[in-house]
Amino acid sequence: MNDSGNDKYLLTPGPLTTSLATKRAMLHDWGSRDTEFIAITGRIRDRLLAIAGVEDSHAAVLVQGSGTFGVEATLGTLIASGQRTLVLENGAYGKRIVAILERIGREVSVLSWPEDQQVDPAALDAALGEDPSIEHVVVVHCETTTGILNDMVAIGRVCGVHKRRLIIDGMSAFGAIPIDGNSVPFDALIASSNKCFEGVPGMAFALIAREWLETTEGNAHSVSLDLYEQWRGLEANGQWRFTPPTHVLAAFDQALAEHREEGGVAARHRRYSANRDILVSGMRELGFETLLADAVQAPIIVTFLMPADQRFDFTRFYDDMSARGFVIYPGKLSIADSFRIGCIGALGPAEMRAAAAAVKATLEAMGIGDLASMATNQASSLNRTET
Amino acid sequence: MNDSGNDKYLLTPGPLTTSLATKRAMLHDWGSRDTEFIAITGRIRDRLLAIAGVEDSHAAVLVQGSGTFGVEATLGTLIASGQRTLVLENGAYGKRIVAILERIGREVSVLSWPEDQQVDPAALDAALGEDPSIEHVVVVHCETTTGILNDMVAIGRVCGVHKRRLIIDGMSAFGAIPIDGNSVPFDALIASSNKCFEGVPGMAFALIAREWLETTEGNAHSVSLDLYEQWRGLEANGQWRFTPPTHVLAAFDQALAEHREEGGVAARHRRYSANRDILVSGMRELGFETLLADAVQAPIIVTFLMPADQRFDFTRFYDDMSARGFVIYPGKLSIADSFRIGCIGALGPAEMRAAAAAVKATLEAMGIGDLASMATNQASSLNRTET
Repeated sequence: MNDSGNDKYLLTPGPLTTSLATKRAMLHDWGSRDTEFIAITGRIRDRLLAIAGVEDSHAAVLVQGSGTFGVEATLGTLIASGQRTLVLENGAYGKRIVAILERIGREVSVLSWPEDQQVDPAALDAALGEDPSIEHVVVVHCETTTGILNDMVAIGRVCGVHKRRLIIDGMSAFGAIPIDGNSVPFDALIASSNKCFEGVPGMAFALIAREWLETTEGNAHSVSLDLYEQWRGLEANGQWRFTPPTHVLAAFDQALAEHREEGGVAARHRRYSANRDILVSGMRELGFETLLADAVQAPIIVTFLMPADQRFDFTRFYDDMSARGFVIYPGKLSIADSFRIGCIGALGPAEMRAAAAAVKATLEAMGIGDLASMATNQASSLNRTET
Repeated sequence: MNDSGNDKYLLTPGPLTTSLATKRAMLHDWGSRDTEFIAITGRIRDRLLAIAGVEDSHAAVLVQGSGTFGVEATLGTLIASGQRTLVLENGAYGKRIVAILERIGREVSVLSWPEDQQVDPAALDAALGEDPSIEHVVVVHCETTTGILNDMVAIGRVCGVHKRRLIIDGMSAFGAIPIDGNSVPFDALIASSNKCFEGVPGMAFALIAREWLETTEGNAHSVSLDLYEQWRGLEANGQWRFTPPTHVLAAFDQALAEHREEGGVAARHRRYSANRDILVSGMRELGFETLLADAVQAPIIVTFLMPADQRFDFTRFYDDMSARGFVIYPGKLSIADSFRIGCIGALGPAEMRAAAAAVKATLEAMGIGDLASMATNQASSLNRTET
């Protein structure tokens, strides 16, 4: 099994499998005001800006909690009451952004697409042309709902032409899908410690254009989630305003060092892409179908359509896979019955081949030896809304 | 040094020194939807209710982030817009509660006391008698600003007589200062993983009267900090709504097991009280004075007045103590120049004696051999506001 001796591999969108060195970084207690911990915080902030190529223009603001905490903190801090935001939505995380904006009382417009289709930059262009009251655009880079990749370069270009602010939820993409301030002129990019950077969960962060952040004092609907005040605190003395998750930060620092050693975003993109390709081809050989077309499938998580074969019982499949050491993920689709398998975390081709082998063994244990027949049944009987 | 081999002892209000076993519980990766992790979450929730003796009446709701996140989430969820809340304030954490209520747009009244005086239940009684519009009372059990203990039994009795809801910020008290639903009929009690329970930082929790929590749907000003929805999610399937800090939870589970093994709240109260007594008597022998009268000094953190002796340089004192393996804490007082030394965490009499010895050695290194003279100077020259 993996580094820790006997943990299951987490083939999920996170929390995911981390390296032993990353976990071992948590074997120390750090004082939140101590010089060494302040250095950890500073190193993480600098490194995140450098990875996105926005050292000169943006500030990295860290915040306690899950990725959603980071999304809500960023939206609540940057968007003032009365300003209208357009959300480009093609999945559950886009819908959550809409729900957050509504809850915190911000004006929101929405453009929606089916879960298996990319956001369309031409529709964005038209919407911004029609409605000059839209000041900000929010989009999810990789929708973990399906694993679909949205085209940030095209979206960024449209926002630039119309001079609107672009906020990217890069939660499950940043660190493995190339993005930088030159090719995509974003105003804010949000992500967390425990996706493509392979840290442990417990903190999120946003890279925010400094000239914007400076104007946001008093915007936030929350004390805890006020990134303006968080930023001022971090800049003043390198300390967090409220108790930071010190062990999570120490693990993230180690995870970022490993990210760099591996070769940064490009190398991680290669490894995850290889993971995805091994997974997808292995699953297709067994008769499974992917929801998405290959061209829009991110190397993050893959959605497989639920087989129609009556012998296939997903609960048993999940439990058997878990017993074989691989934790997979239920589906989150409204358009099709499905399940998901992630390809991110501290694992590579050997582990993905082992996962595919475990799927094969599980199917055989279910008495589904005639895999080709499963595939044939599948296409005709899926309860899938045509889009 | 401590369990981890070479870490400094954290004589602070947290993050603090944890046991090696607690840290080692973080050497595994858990899937947030996996049975084993769901069991960890359930065990923690049950244990917290049992410790407060409110298994039958309250629900334990966990939330990502620091203690302040827990305070804000509890206030925002339980207090509806338009309801008036009285805050009893005698320190920085009481002031923060006022700031949170103001930021989230709740009606707030405040009764304040100097930082070295307890909240006065008679004044609360008068205020509630005069203002029937006050629906809720919020108070900090142990104000970490100074280490002063407020009288929860008396405050609870007054709230009961006037039939007002009582919300207790028990952050730095719960787990070591006895409190339970019988002696103090509280409606909500907020604390975190990394104070007297000796877990690592990254999550907070609230124990909330179920009959109240059930009525709070839609109150919250925030999606992330909505404890009603968090509770519904936890009750529905044992899972967190958003990615939980899995490693922090695993550590908390271990820390709670150790709390139980030690003998629960009573045993921890004894150990921390012994720690405090060793610290205070050692410091007094060296000529230091405590801010607080002994009768109101909690066994959590002790505020010492800054010596007037010109040879005493606090920055050097802090750094020298740190080099000797003890991280102390700056003061947070408005009424006197001071510093603080904590007595909580995975440490006992031997470590507290070593801390006192380190203070002595540090003073000697500063050339302050004549400690008695320091004490004499002190009382007459302190920049202290009389209260």
